[in-house]
Amino acid sequence: MEQPFQIQSNGGVTAPKGFLAGGLHAGLKKTDRNDLGVILCEVPAVAAAVYTTSIFQAAPLHVTRNSIAESNGYLRGIVVNSGNANACTGEQGEKDAYLMRAEAAVAFGFAEHELAVASTGVIGELLPMDIVTAGIKKLPTVLEANDEGAEQFCQAILTTDLVKKEIAVTLQVDGKTITLGGAAKGSGMIHPNMATMLGFVTTDAVIEPAVLQQLLREVTDLTFNMITVDGDTSTNDMLLVMASGLAQNESLNPTHPAWDSFVAAFRHVCEYLAKEIARDGEGASKLVEVQVHGAVSDNSAKAIAKTVVGSSLVKTAIFGADANWGRIIAAVGRAGEPVNPNTVDIQLGAIEVLKDSRPIRFDEDEALAYLQGKNVVIQVYLHQGDGSAIAWGCDLTYDYVRINAAYRT
Amino acid sequence: MEQPFQIQSNGGVTAPKGFLAGGLHAGLKKTDRNDLGVILCEVPAVAAAVYTTSIFQAAPLHVTRNSIAESNGYLRGIVVNSGNANACTGEQGEKDAYLMRAEAAVAFGFAEHELAVASTGVIGELLPMDIVTAGIKKLPTVLEANDEGAEQFCQAILTTDLVKKEIAVTLQVDGKTITLGGAAKGSGMIHPNMATMLGFVTTDAVIEPAVLQQLLREVTDLTFNMITVDGDTSTNDMLLVMASGLAQNESLNPTHPAWDSFVAAFRHVCEYLAKEIARDGEGASKLVEVQVHGAVSDNSAKAIAKTVVGSSLVKTAIFGADANWGRIIAAVGRAGEPVNPNTVDIQLGAIEVLKDSRPIRFDEDEALAYLQGKNVVIQVYLHQGDGSAIAWGCDLTYDYVRINAAYRT
Repeated sequence: MEQPFQIQSNGGVTAPKGFLAGGLHAGLKKTDRNDLGVILCEVPAVAAAVYTTSIFQAAPLHVTRNSIAESNGYLRGIVVNSGNANACTGEQGEKDAYLMRAEAAVAFGFAEHELAVASTGVIGELLPMDIVTAGIKKLPTVLEANDEGAEQFCQAILTTDLVKKEIAVTLQVDGKTITLGGAAKGSGMIHPNMATMLGFVTTDAVIEPAVLQQLLREVTDLTFNMITVDGDTSTNDMLLVMASGLAQNESLNPTHPAWDSFVAAFRHVCEYLAKEIARDGEGASKLVEVQVHGAVSDNSAKAIAKTVVGSSLVKTAIFGADANWGRIIAAVGRAGEPVNPNTVDIQLGAIEVLKDSRPIRFDEDEALAYLQGKNVVIQVYLHQGDGSAIAWGCDLTYDYVRINAAYRT
Repeated sequence: MEQPFQIQSNGGVTAPKGFLAGGLHAGLKKTDRNDLGVILCEVPAVAAAVYTTSIFQAAPLHVTRNSIAESNGYLRGIVVNSGNANACTGEQGEKDAYLMRAEAAVAFGFAEHELAVASTGVIGELLPMDIVTAGIKKLPTVLEANDEGAEQFCQAILTTDLVKKEIAVTLQVDGKTITLGGAAKGSGMIHPNMATMLGFVTTDAVIEPAVLQQLLREVTDLTFNMITVDGDTSTNDMLLVMASGLAQNESLNPTHPAWDSFVAAFRHVCEYLAKEIARDGEGASKLVEVQVHGAVSDNSAKAIAKTVVGSSLVKTAIFGADANWGRIIAAVGRAGEPVNPNTVDIQLGAIEVLKDSRPIRFDEDEALAYLQGKNVVIQVYLHQGDGSAIAWGCDLTYDYVRINAAYRT
């Protein structure tokens, strides 16, 4: 089927009508990189968010949840800092997160509950509020409605990420052009259920808050919740969507004829950002995609795909370009899901390495060449039912160890 | 409480009365290290075993299970090879494992079902049966009832292990000396539920098969099933116990006055071997022990302890001697267990780093010095109930990546 949307050659969160963004260096990071960013909407935007499942949800998540609840599903914008996660910071951390929102409300002239906040970085240290406050006061001066604003915002949310992650796509609905933009950051403590992952999607589509929230939940389960870098789930993960409605289409919901197209575009934006996070995982040299077919259910396939893509032994084998299917099948076998031990086929790219759970002869040079590429696809066929799933991750490299043996110091 | 048993300064599986062991180089490994070993008992020994939970249980496990069932819980010995796991080898692999048992029965003059077999090494390649058969024929010539036989056996079961793992302890029961001996190997694909882990415990205690099996199950859950090296569970894990009965005590069971002492000795042997496997995990530079106290139940504490000790981010931080308690609490928070987010205390050795879920000031130099040691204990106090557990693992190092990026090639 042809893609019902167009991927733009550049652009990010400011691509949809009504959005501005920007970023600056406030002083939270020791380097001169941006560490404070903002996305604003010219009109109240329908907002939906999903949050980490960690018990230790960081303070900014409580504040964002409060804003969306207080405003009945609308936001005018979000202020984000990197360099400090404001997590495990107790009552003072809560106060600081609310103060961050209040300062932003003053700077931009909105009510407090019209703004959300997010933080990413080191856990357990109080936010230096003098630096944050001074930075927020300057934020209005860096707001731009163009690609440069989106880019500066992208830079402001990075921590150990090497590259910015942004995308813009368009589609036609009711004779109007709807645009979606997205930005995200990784790159460690990444695992299903939202990790040190921050994601922001903007659109000018008209859509009701409850419909947007339901869509966000469903698409997150197929995209951001299907990536893992290191199996660790962060305290700060959040994915926020804002819809300005300025495209003036008929309100989108499952009965709208263009609903499937909109879902496909929305899913593409989320999947693109999720894959970019996996590809840029700490120390990663490759993007790894694990497809599971023929499981007893989609959920079973998901569990198996996540187990394989998260296996340290699979990840190191792929780093070494070693066609070690034994580790793949070992991961399949420990996933705790129903698997017939005699009917498993495995392919690396187009190379069949296992048929009916038995190794088959393959060209080792061809396999080496394939695994030395930047994108590795592992396909697992179980022949048990119709369930399927795709998960994404990365290889486990020397650089992962180097980065994480000395992150805090 | 004083330990009710004595740890011997040396000795292994041949320490208890009635046991002989040995090992030799048959040619399965490319180096000249031992790759075929045997433990034999002069009399039929009560036998019990636990096996991997992987769906892809390797062929030798089926054969061992068959032997113990056929002989109603007795064995005369076990033959073990390293260098090839005989896993994912289909019907031919099953035939080969049964043939390995049959050849050993001929060599030692026992019925087939009196012998067990085990394999460890590369997955998915057929055993070279000419080499295995020739080696088995020579095994009777290397049998010894002394420490040298135990040592040669230990060497024969190693793969990427750096050091042999063996122990002997004694205790007094009914005026008789009971001895327990043990041997084990790791060291990758190690995770709860038996990994590429082979463990062998011998004793001369008198004990019934059903009692021994029950004891083995309970102690395994507290020892071998509480270690992780890399989160991967192997197809070949097995822990086998044989009791010769030659100590001539009254049969041991929970009503025997010395039962608790025997359990303590048995648990010590298993815990020692499990910890040695964790300490010698692939690439490991440290043994990490995670104690969880005050959980809602022991099972909840176990899940949390395993999550923390298995976290790649915790493991790399410990490799880097970084007192990064943020990663510890993040792992606690994603374990899926009931935790009060406001009442968690964390200690690194004797150094308190978190109180009531808030960081407290600690001496960074002292923490650095502690974390640079060879043994790191992380204590987590939840203040929710009486559940507690201990899990063991190791740090994640450059050497882990090096070893696993090129294992098969």
